[in-house]
Amino acid sequence: MTTLGEKATRQHTRDVNLRLVLRAIYELGAVSRADLARLTNLTRTTVSDVVAELIERGLVVETGPATGGGIGRTPILLSVAEWSRPVAAVSVNADAVEGALVSLRGAVGARIRQPLAGRTGMDALAVLREVLDSLTQAATQPLLGIGVTTPGLIDAGSGAVVRAVGLEWVDLPLGQMLHERYALPVKVVNDSQCLALAEHLFGEWRGVQNVVVLKIGKGVGAGIVLNGQLYAGEGFGAGEIGHLAFTADGPLCKCGNRGCLETILGTDALLAQAHAALADDPASALAQYAADLSLAHIADAAIAGDPAAQRIVANAAAATGAAVATIISLLSVRHVLITGRIAAFGAAFIDLVRREVAQRALPALVRDAEIRLAPVSTTAPLIGAAAPVLTGELGLIRLHQREETE
Amino acid sequence: MTTLGEKATRQHTRDVNLRLVLRAIYELGAVSRADLARLTNLTRTTVSDVVAELIERGLVVETGPATGGGIGRTPILLSVAEWSRPVAAVSVNADAVEGALVSLRGAVGARIRQPLAGRTGMDALAVLREVLDSLTQAATQPLLGIGVTTPGLIDAGSGAVVRAVGLEWVDLPLGQMLHERYALPVKVVNDSQCLALAEHLFGEWRGVQNVVVLKIGKGVGAGIVLNGQLYAGEGFGAGEIGHLAFTADGPLCKCGNRGCLETILGTDALLAQAHAALADDPASALAQYAADLSLAHIADAAIAGDPAAQRIVANAAAATGAAVATIISLLSVRHVLITGRIAAFGAAFIDLVRREVAQRALPALVRDAEIRLAPVSTTAPLIGAAAPVLTGELGLIRLHQREETE
Repeated sequence: MTTLGEKATRQHTRDVNLRLVLRAIYELGAVSRADLARLTNLTRTTVSDVVAELIERGLVVETGPATGGGIGRTPILLSVAEWSRPVAAVSVNADAVEGALVSLRGAVGARIRQPLAGRTGMDALAVLREVLDSLTQAATQPLLGIGVTTPGLIDAGSGAVVRAVGLEWVDLPLGQMLHERYALPVKVVNDSQCLALAEHLFGEWRGVQNVVVLKIGKGVGAGIVLNGQLYAGEGFGAGEIGHLAFTADGPLCKCGNRGCLETILGTDALLAQAHAALADDPASALAQYAADLSLAHIADAAIAGDPAAQRIVANAAAATGAAVATIISLLSVRHVLITGRIAAFGAAFIDLVRREVAQRALPALVRDAEIRLAPVSTTAPLIGAAAPVLTGELGLIRLHQREETE
Repeated sequence: MTTLGEKATRQHTRDVNLRLVLRAIYELGAVSRADLARLTNLTRTTVSDVVAELIERGLVVETGPATGGGIGRTPILLSVAEWSRPVAAVSVNADAVEGALVSLRGAVGARIRQPLAGRTGMDALAVLREVLDSLTQAATQPLLGIGVTTPGLIDAGSGAVVRAVGLEWVDLPLGQMLHERYALPVKVVNDSQCLALAEHLFGEWRGVQNVVVLKIGKGVGAGIVLNGQLYAGEGFGAGEIGHLAFTADGPLCKCGNRGCLETILGTDALLAQAHAALADDPASALAQYAADLSLAHIADAAIAGDPAAQRIVANAAAATGAAVATIISLLSVRHVLITGRIAAFGAAFIDLVRREVAQRALPALVRDAEIRLAPVSTTAPLIGAAAPVLTGELGLIRLHQREETE
């Protein structure tokens, strides 16, 4: 007869082995039972038992015999069933709530989009629930969990929205509310954090352990991954540099201070600068776009040689460069991705940013830093929203990281 | 007969138990064997065995019976023998090499000081070795290890000095060299990092998990403790904000850029500003100190109402406030200690700094931030140098931290 304690220990060991084997299969892509035993240091019997359970649960599938075998029986390869536990991922932005199922490998399924049309508070929350209802109904497999990204200060531990100004959400226990409604694990991260996770886990810099993503759109903020982990800070405000003052005598910001980066680099600020330039000089190359002026138009006018447009791009590059220099100096990270609507400013802009950074940070740190400009893809926010669920619930996407040591 | 594997496992278990019991005694100050068994979940027999070994090794002593007992035998209390394994701690600064033995509780023994008198490179290293020779000879107990702090970029993993400009050390494998000479574990951290560790482990903010110490002296740099761990960054340059440009058109810095914080806030820069003010206005209150002008004199003149001195203090506060606002915005930390020679500027200065921070960072982050000004104590660099040895070699000073979870 086994005691309760022994049973608990056995169950724990079994869970640990399940995760270990699943992660190994996930990381290796396709692998035989024999190789799994060798790589995990488990016995072949244990591996067979665990694999049988994973197959029964639908998490793992046999994907046919290995090619190019040798003598003896050809081993069967095992793979993670990518869509066996999709994550319902939702991204809330200024205009709309978007959602999709995301696979265990970060693939994004059919996207749903519900415009917010100015709705905030509980009305915006209702739109979020609508999108989640559609996703949960569309899922043909059990969901692994729900991942949400929204602008604002987020308590990642509890999933509460401390404050999201545009949505008028203050101390909203979003994670808990969604958990109660859907009975699924829920993770919430903010928009910059989610892009940093997407880049670190599935982006061009996949596997890079220290990545900062500086998002410059309507708002300005940085998502910070340090030592392979999202860094949110004690007040959940890490990376909130949109309201860091760049100049003491700059424009008044809605936060009450002057010269915040957002009043210089935010999309509204850049467009206001262009409209002001146009008012000053109606002959400006910007005039042709006046009706629906966009950041891309400013970039086009700058390339065409319009001095006012060039000044706007140069000023934006100076402020962006100062922000990146600060990030590199304080965090000593080597990978900074600039993204958001400002990506429309293109190659001339990022060249100016790099030059500004070189003039503002220690040469030894600048030398090793890669600074990239890329637009936000339509899928990155959804992938980033799903990422904490994947890492938290299955312990996936962790094998390539250095294990923690004391 | 036991196999080699079983022996290894038993030895490992014994080591784990030794550390566990030692840490418990260390953290609790004075504790009985019975309480240890209760608190560690080890059996009383195991605790007795482990304690016997710790006493035999001299690490733990019996400190007499507990007071106020009850019925039955009065239990004997156990304490860590504070000086049983001192750390040889050495602090290299611009002027001298200082050293002392540091106890397991961060107490600092008799200090040795050897002026550098302008020596750099291998000559400075010889001074460091002299001080360490004296310390190792003075020790009456086995040393736990060697802890060194020096200005510069340090690879904390290997203990190599990547670059320490003033000392003309470049890619110096300091940790390895000292390890080979003294056959002891060696840890090396830079001057700002060491002050952050001292504050986090033994300072007024002992136990605070996120602390930034901004040192403003000859150089300017920040030491960063995040989640209870020193954060050094990928390029070992985290916190190197002395060469972050504050104004694009500021004074030329020795790093080649303009307007670095060091050219505004470094001691030499502040004194140069005072001498320039004095040259402009020989009637300034600064004149009385002209021969040996110091930062304290500038502060005195400012308090006495001298406009030039007040301007110097105000400008320094503006730059310091900008740096602190950056730290708070990017890292979302709630405890920032400003230290170094600038502490001579006193209460008026820190008030201006706090006001500047409030104008430059998100109100929600500023509201929760404590910003303190304190001079560097004579012992803090030595305590901070010893700290990584204490945490690394005995796993001490860790119990009050949240244990790492995956």
